[in-house]
Amino acid sequence: MNIKAGIVGYGNLGQAVEYLIGKLDDFELFGIFSRRETLDTNATVYPVADAHKYKDDIDVLFLCVGSATDIPEQAAGFAEHFTTVDTYDNHSKVAEHYAAMDQAAKANDNVAIVSTGWDPGLFSMNRVLGLSLFPEPIQNTFWGKGLSQGHSDAVRQVAGVRRGVQYTIPAQDAIDQARAGNGQGLSKTTSHERIVYIVADAADHDRIREEITTMPDYFEPYDTTVHFVSNEEFERDHQGAPHGGYVITTGDLQGHNASVEFSLALESNPNFTAAAMVAFGRAAARLKDQGNSGAYTVLEVPLYLLSQQSLQEMMETGLV
Amino acid sequence: MNIKAGIVGYGNLGQAVEYLIGKLDDFELFGIFSRRETLDTNATVYPVADAHKYKDDIDVLFLCVGSATDIPEQAAGFAEHFTTVDTYDNHSKVAEHYAAMDQAAKANDNVAIVSTGWDPGLFSMNRVLGLSLFPEPIQNTFWGKGLSQGHSDAVRQVAGVRRGVQYTIPAQDAIDQARAGNGQGLSKTTSHERIVYIVADAADHDRIREEITTMPDYFEPYDTTVHFVSNEEFERDHQGAPHGGYVITTGDLQGHNASVEFSLALESNPNFTAAAMVAFGRAAARLKDQGNSGAYTVLEVPLYLLSQQSLQEMMETGLV
Repeated sequence: MNIKAGIVGYGNLGQAVEYLIGKLDDFELFGIFSRRETLDTNATVYPVADAHKYKDDIDVLFLCVGSATDIPEQAAGFAEHFTTVDTYDNHSKVAEHYAAMDQAAKANDNVAIVSTGWDPGLFSMNRVLGLSLFPEPIQNTFWGKGLSQGHSDAVRQVAGVRRGVQYTIPAQDAIDQARAGNGQGLSKTTSHERIVYIVADAADHDRIREEITTMPDYFEPYDTTVHFVSNEEFERDHQGAPHGGYVITTGDLQGHNASVEFSLALESNPNFTAAAMVAFGRAAARLKDQGNSGAYTVLEVPLYLLSQQSLQEMMETGLV
Repeated sequence: MNIKAGIVGYGNLGQAVEYLIGKLDDFELFGIFSRRETLDTNATVYPVADAHKYKDDIDVLFLCVGSATDIPEQAAGFAEHFTTVDTYDNHSKVAEHYAAMDQAAKANDNVAIVSTGWDPGLFSMNRVLGLSLFPEPIQNTFWGKGLSQGHSDAVRQVAGVRRGVQYTIPAQDAIDQARAGNGQGLSKTTSHERIVYIVADAADHDRIREEITTMPDYFEPYDTTVHFVSNEEFERDHQGAPHGGYVITTGDLQGHNASVEFSLALESNPNFTAAAMVAFGRAAARLKDQGNSGAYTVLEVPLYLLSQQSLQEMMETGLV
C-alpha cells in the first residue's frame, strides 16, 4: 500500500514529517497545506482553506498545528474530510478532543488518531502497559534531559542575560529509587533538577544567578544550577532541542521486585515527535482501509499496524 | 467484568499465575488442572483430562505448560474448548503455533493469545514499535542480568564443582554503543559477558576456572569471569531467578540521534512472565466478550485491553 499524505502546517513538526515521508518507501507526499502562500520546500503548497477539495487525493492528513488553539478550533473540521493524525498534547482535554474527533470522523467514515507523539503518545502507551502488569504498581514519569521552552524564555527576561537556555534533568537518585520500587513518594519537584546556561557580562553573574534561582514557581522550589558560558560555547553546545524521559513502573511479585522501564533520549524533540506521528499515520491509513472509522487513542491501535512489515513477516523473522 | 480463570500446569509459572489471580479484583480462580492428583494449593484441583467438562465455567484458561513439547502437543486441543493464553517461547515456530491456534480457536469461537510473557511478549512489542519509528532503524536486544539455566547446568558438570550458577550480563560498553546509534555491528557474543559463581575446594579452583572458560560454545567465545564463593555466600546471594534485558532502537533523524529503550530488571523471571501473561489473559477475555475469535499475537492486542481501567477513565485521569 502506498500511502498518500498531506501535511497541514509547516513549522518544525510539519517540516520533520515532510522529511520522514520522503525517506519512507510506503508513503508519498501529495502536498502541504498552509496559510502562507510560499514555503521553503520543493513540495506542492496549497492554501489550507482549499484542503477539502483534495480529500480524494489523500489517505492521511498530518495535522502539524498548535495544540493551544489550532487543534481545538480546526481538527474536527479536517476529520470531516480526511483520515487524520494529530499530536494534541493537552493531557487534561484529551477526552474532550477525542469525543469531538470521534463524532466528526465517524459521521464521514474517516479515522482520526489523536494525541500521538511521545507524551502523550509512546509514554501514554507505556504508562498503561506498566500499570496493567501489577496488582499494586508504582509508577513515575521523569522528563529530560530536555530543553524547556517556557523556562528558557523566563531566564532570558532577567536583566543582563544576553543568551540563555534551561534544561530539565531527572535526578539520578530519584530514577534509582523508582527502579528499586521506592518511587511512591517522589514529587515532580524533588525528582527533577534545572540546569541553566547563560551568556552575560562577568559583573552581572552573581546577581543573575540569584535572580534565577529565587524566581518563584519557575525555579525557586527546584534544585537549580546556573552555568555561565562564552558566546562561542553557547553557539556550539546549546542550539539543539533535546528531550526525552523515563516511564518507570515497578511491582512487588511475591517479594520480588520487577522494574519495567521505557526511556527516550532525543537529540531533537520535534523530529522524534514527527517519527511517532508518521508511524501512527501508517496505522490510520490501514485502519481506514480495513473499513474502520472514528477516533482512536494510541492505546487502541494494535502495534502491528505501525510497521511496514506484515504480521506474517514479523512472525516468520523472529521479531515476535 | 469478573473473569473466571483456569490454570493448566502447576510449576513455577502456574503457581505465579495463581498468586496474581488471588491479588487482582477482576479475576477469580475456578481451579487448577493437573496430571497430579494432589497439589500444594488451596484451590480446587481437577484432572487435566476432564478440563473440557468445565468449558462453560471458565472465561480464560492459562496454559502454564512447557514450550518444548506440551504446547505443540496440547495447546490447540485446549483452544477448541477455551479462550487461552500461553507463553510459547520458541521464536522460530511462533508462526506455526499461531496458525494451529487460529484454526482451533476460530472453529470454536474462542480467542487464543499466543507467546505472551516478556520475550517473546513485551520485548516483541517493543522491537516492532522501535523498528516502526525510523526509516533506517538500528536495533539491539540484550539479555540479563539473568540466570541461565542451561549454562548453570553446564558448569555443574565440571568435576569438583559442588554448587554453581551462571549469569549472563550485557556489556555496558555494548549498551552505550547501542544507545549512541552505533549498535549495528554488535554481535550477541561480544555484547554479553558470562559471570559464574562456584562453590568448590580451593585446590580445584585453577583447574575449574580453566575448564569453564575454555568450554566450547558455552563459554569459549564469551568474556567469562569465574568467582569462587563460600557455601554460605552462595546460599545467601544465588538462590533467585533474576532476569531482564534491553531492547534498544536508534534512528538518525536529519542528523539527530533518537534512542528508544525498553528495559526490564526482574528479581524473579517466572513471576514477571506470569504478570505479563495475566494482563493478556484479561485482554483475551475481553476480546472474546467483544465477539472476536481466533489467534492473536501480542502485536494485535490494543493496549487498553490489558488494563483494569476503562479507556474513558484513562483519558480522563491523564494517563493518555
